[in-house]
Amino acid sequence: MRATVMNKAGDVAIAHVPDATILHPTDAVIRVTRACICGSDLWPYNDGPNVAGQQMGHEAIGVVEAVGSAVEKIKVGQVVVMPFAFSDGTCLFCEDGLHTACNHGGFFGVGGEIGGAQAEALRVPFADGTLYPLPVGEDDALMPSLLTLSDVMGTGHHAAITSRVRQGGVVAVVGDGAVGLCGVIAAKRLGAEQIIIMGRHQARLDLARAFGATDVVSARGEEAIEQVRSLTQGLGVQSVLECVGHAQAIETSMGIVRKGGAVGRVGVPHYPAIPAAQPMFFGNVTVAGGPAPVRAYIDELLPEVMDGKIEPGRVFDRTVTLDGVPDGYRAMNERSALKVLIRP
Amino acid sequence: MRATVMNKAGDVAIAHVPDATILHPTDAVIRVTRACICGSDLWPYNDGPNVAGQQMGHEAIGVVEAVGSAVEKIKVGQVVVMPFAFSDGTCLFCEDGLHTACNHGGFFGVGGEIGGAQAEALRVPFADGTLYPLPVGEDDALMPSLLTLSDVMGTGHHAAITSRVRQGGVVAVVGDGAVGLCGVIAAKRLGAEQIIIMGRHQARLDLARAFGATDVVSARGEEAIEQVRSLTQGLGVQSVLECVGHAQAIETSMGIVRKGGAVGRVGVPHYPAIPAAQPMFFGNVTVAGGPAPVRAYIDELLPEVMDGKIEPGRVFDRTVTLDGVPDGYRAMNERSALKVLIRP
Repeated sequence: MRATVMNKAGDVAIAHVPDATILHPTDAVIRVTRACICGSDLWPYNDGPNVAGQQMGHEAIGVVEAVGSAVEKIKVGQVVVMPFAFSDGTCLFCEDGLHTACNHGGFFGVGGEIGGAQAEALRVPFADGTLYPLPVGEDDALMPSLLTLSDVMGTGHHAAITSRVRQGGVVAVVGDGAVGLCGVIAAKRLGAEQIIIMGRHQARLDLARAFGATDVVSARGEEAIEQVRSLTQGLGVQSVLECVGHAQAIETSMGIVRKGGAVGRVGVPHYPAIPAAQPMFFGNVTVAGGPAPVRAYIDELLPEVMDGKIEPGRVFDRTVTLDGVPDGYRAMNERSALKVLIRP
Repeated sequence: MRATVMNKAGDVAIAHVPDATILHPTDAVIRVTRACICGSDLWPYNDGPNVAGQQMGHEAIGVVEAVGSAVEKIKVGQVVVMPFAFSDGTCLFCEDGLHTACNHGGFFGVGGEIGGAQAEALRVPFADGTLYPLPVGEDDALMPSLLTLSDVMGTGHHAAITSRVRQGGVVAVVGDGAVGLCGVIAAKRLGAEQIIIMGRHQARLDLARAFGATDVVSARGEEAIEQVRSLTQGLGVQSVLECVGHAQAIETSMGIVRKGGAVGRVGVPHYPAIPAAQPMFFGNVTVAGGPAPVRAYIDELLPEVMDGKIEPGRVFDRTVTLDGVPDGYRAMNERSALKVLIRP
């Protein structure tokens, strides 16, 4: 079958790889009908893969083609959304709703035995715990928004939950990528009254406003911090959704958070320590977040996607086939595309 | 009047200072009937005061001697407990229960215009917002436990709240000082099932066991981390009450916290950054805490002190008069006293 592989930094290609098959009784194999490229795929695209030939992609919707002998809930023929992490669904972490800490879990698209979603098909470990059946046909018009439940919408929601967005809250979203934009949607639906989007790309900022952002800050560093403070009576924001992961993003987050407020991190941190441990302490500031347990959030978010109450699929601004994936990486890396949808 | 002053590192003395008087209409003056020495007083005792002649002490029970013209709730003659921070009781932070972030608030015993509690009397700003009347006479037998509501019991409770101790929870308390021991009480009353106390002083560890600790770890560094992990099926603890503030204490905390768990910091941090930002992220670990809003916690804790359900006053193992305060500092600094009560 054909799949996306990362050979080395900047060298992403479509290659023939062994067909996805059932390896364990709890596996399923899905035919991928929708996948996409993630902002986090740009880290190995720029810095090099975990392993040469790393199979890429961790977001998918597909049709179940086969299930192992121990799979009980997932059935052949179902249309399913696949969270970016697999999870057994039964360990104490899964039962607690933290599927990304599953005792037997892991991540798709990171190399090794686990495949990637930017492919014709994919083996899914722990199918019953991982996959979530969708109440639609495989070409439903809602596919783009449904696909975001595999990562970016659930991740934006996690940033909002871990930064404790509340009714009437004052919020800033650091980063105008797809996750940041989904963070705006999440903050809005949780009742935030003021939502400051921090970014520099006009089309994305326009989309943020359409999703509910009330203010835009495009400055960086100290100037950005001052602007957020002046938008919030000098107090800063109660909730910071940190959707980037750069050192400057966490520094800005610590600079704009209000006393008693919280920073919810969902950008994979490319810094070794949380700065400002003392002001953070004296301000009773909370830092939380991590890989989003998107599997746990589908129950809450799916009905609103189905109703059209939220439209996170609007983050996709380009669609490619598998052959177009290398171009898709280039476009996202150059910021000429926001998020690229793949129809294998 | 007589008060405790810190002249320079190691030089704490009883001095004559101007009498405490009403300066602002919202002030009260209390005659101090009980005060104490705090572990945090040992920082200036070792490193030098904020200002020469810094008036020391921030924990008190007293009798109201005078109130300003704008004081409405607090009355002359009342026996009151004084939290270590003053707060107006009306700003958005106070209304949110975060009195230590009060827009007009501050801390006692830090030098400058604000006095210290290790004295015959003290001016209390924002008397209505700060002081809490007690339903007892000034020499009630419960005084030691009631006095802990001014700081250490509320601070231990804050560590437990911000580290999200829950019914059936698995908890570690880093530090066997008075705050750590109150943290054990707090964790126990919130329903923790396993409470690991981490410390090295036998008498304190015995008291921790009496308060509800189920396990003791006296190792340090990597060895301590391994011991906590082996006590918790390799998973670490859900809640870490960090009651020290040294760099090693936060490193240990980050090493023993379970995925999805939380570290509640109440030891004033003597380190610039929270280490392990990446493992913290991948484990969805929360770091929270800060100066405890003890004023907000009195409503919840006072009834249990009155009923004898909790006995935090057992942390006091020595009582002195004002003249004995310099000896009290020496004893606490040498760890020959756990916490010294003062009857001025």
